[in-house]
Amino acid sequence: MAVTTLYMSDRDPEKRTFTDKKEADALDKKLEFAENLRVFLEARIVGLDEEKAEQIGLLIADYKDEMITALKGKPEILANIDEDKGNVESISSKKNTA
Amino acid sequence: MAVTTLYMSDRDPEKRTFTDKKEADALDKKLEFAENLRVFLEARIVGLDEEKAEQIGLLIADYKDEMITALKGKPEILANIDEDKGNVESISSKKNTA
Repeated sequence: MAVTTLYMSDRDPEKRTFTDKKEADALDKKLEFAENLRVFLEARIVGLDEEKAEQIGLLIADYKDEMITALKGKPEILANIDEDKGNVESISSKKNTA
Repeated sequence: MAVTTLYMSDRDPEKRTFTDKKEADALDKKLEFAENLRVFLEARIVGLDEEKAEQIGLLIADYKDEMITALKGKPEILANIDEDKGNVESISSKKNTA
C-alpha cells in the first residue's frame, strides 16, 4: 500500500486536505489574512459582530486580486464583480455544522 | 483682490476644499474606493447595515498601503497598526451634524 502525503492548513476549521502543498499554503495565507482583517475591523468598527467581521475578512481574501487593483486606483473593478460568484458563508456557521 | 483656486471632491459631503489639486484628487479616489467597497460588501454580507459598510469602506481606504501589503502576503501588518490612529467616524454621522 502506497503512502500519500497530504497537506492541511491548521487555520482551517474544515480541515481540508490537499495533495498539492501550494494549494494548502494558499488557503493558509487566505485564512491568515481573513483572521487578521477580522481582528482589525472588530477593533475599529463599533458594533461590528464577530461573524460579520469574519465573513468580510474571508470575502476580501477571496477577492484579493480585485481588491489590490481597486486599492491601487481602479475602485470601479469592485462594481464589475459578479454577485453570485461570491456569497461567503462564514466559517463559524460551518463550524456549527461540523 | 487676488483670486484663489480651490479644489473639492464632489463625493465629499463635508465639502472640504484644497489649494493643492493632488490632495483633492487623493481624497476623491479614497471616497470613490470607500463607496465601491461599501456597495460590494452590502451586496454580499447579509445583514450588514449601510453605516457599518460605509465605515469599513473608509477604514480600508484609510489604510490602503497596509491593506495592499497584507493582501500581498504579509497579513500580520494589520496586527501592528496602532489602534488609536484609526477610529473612523462615518460620513453619514457627519452628514447629520452638517
